[in-house]
Amino acid sequence: MIAAALELVGERGPNAVTLGDVGQRVGTSHAAVLYHFRTRRDLLLAVLEERDRKARTLLDRCFLDGGLAALRRLADLGHGIQREPNFTKLAHVLQAESLEDDRVGRYFRARYQYIRGGLARAIRTGQQRGEIREGFDVDARAAEITAFMFGIAQQHFIDPDSLDVVAVYADFVGNLVADIALDGAEVDRTPASP
Amino acid sequence: MIAAALELVGERGPNAVTLGDVGQRVGTSHAAVLYHFRTRRDLLLAVLEERDRKARTLLDRCFLDGGLAALRRLADLGHGIQREPNFTKLAHVLQAESLEDDRVGRYFRARYQYIRGGLARAIRTGQQRGEIREGFDVDARAAEITAFMFGIAQQHFIDPDSLDVVAVYADFVGNLVADIALDGAEVDRTPASP
Repeated sequence: MIAAALELVGERGPNAVTLGDVGQRVGTSHAAVLYHFRTRRDLLLAVLEERDRKARTLLDRCFLDGGLAALRRLADLGHGIQREPNFTKLAHVLQAESLEDDRVGRYFRARYQYIRGGLARAIRTGQQRGEIREGFDVDARAAEITAFMFGIAQQHFIDPDSLDVVAVYADFVGNLVADIALDGAEVDRTPASP
Repeated sequence: MIAAALELVGERGPNAVTLGDVGQRVGTSHAAVLYHFRTRRDLLLAVLEERDRKARTLLDRCFLDGGLAALRRLADLGHGIQREPNFTKLAHVLQAESLEDDRVGRYFRARYQYIRGGLARAIRTGQQRGEIREGFDVDARAAEITAFMFGIAQQHFIDPDSLDVVAVYADFVGNLVADIALDGAEVDRTPASP
């Protein structure tokens, strides 16, 4: 049922998917869907969780490996935003609808902390390996990279035609790597190929 | 009536303000508010437009002056986010509710383009004055700064306690200025005081 909901959100965007649509797609009744997900919000949160679980493979590897090469791989995320803007929209819509919902709020806080924490670890790993310089605020930089990641996805879905999200992502990551690389470390401003 | 709605959104956040509340605040009927704003969405868009008009004084000056000193003043925006998170929420909620509404979509596209365009102009002015180096993609950089601005405001309202938005804003602007300043140009990593 989650797989069907994931498909539908990807195809139509989050605002156009109802519990009834999901029932229809899996060939069951609206009541059966209602039994699994009490509300449309619960359904959307389950879809986001499932989607995040898949997306985290790339991030987990990046955060685990750490260092400059791992950070360079972040540029691949630009392709995902371009290919599947409806999942960026899903997070955006759910976040807006749930400002007073503690359970959803917790999910989003944990989501931001996972990304900020992972980026900070990846940078510190690079510092220990002598790839990344010292002397800057690692936690602030991690928050700045996170802000870019969410902000650029949002600009893309609001205004896809005046922004080449893949190129801007690659440019951002290239600038970041050039800025934090230890002087003398081998710097390649081009992102790793996907 | 817009002034009253602006106050209410600032106090309670966008999801807790109805047309009826606005009528009550100005001492008129729900019907009178309905006469001015056909829907709650129209009311919220009018509030955002009014709010943006005020906020643009700082941005207009920054974009007009251009150069490194003007870009450094962007750090002041961190204080605004911290002081009035409900207006960040307002933009976020309206954007999410209006993904299929062309009129609201146009407003947000124009809003992003105003900021990206203004930032690109400010950078080019700095290049002409010999404060900012050449050899980077100015339009991509403007999109990256815009992404940071919206992304950090969002992280702050979802997770205010684990993020010092004023410090992160100042750090971002300091890093930006240090990165794009022409070698030999006088670089001050601390932001201008408010």
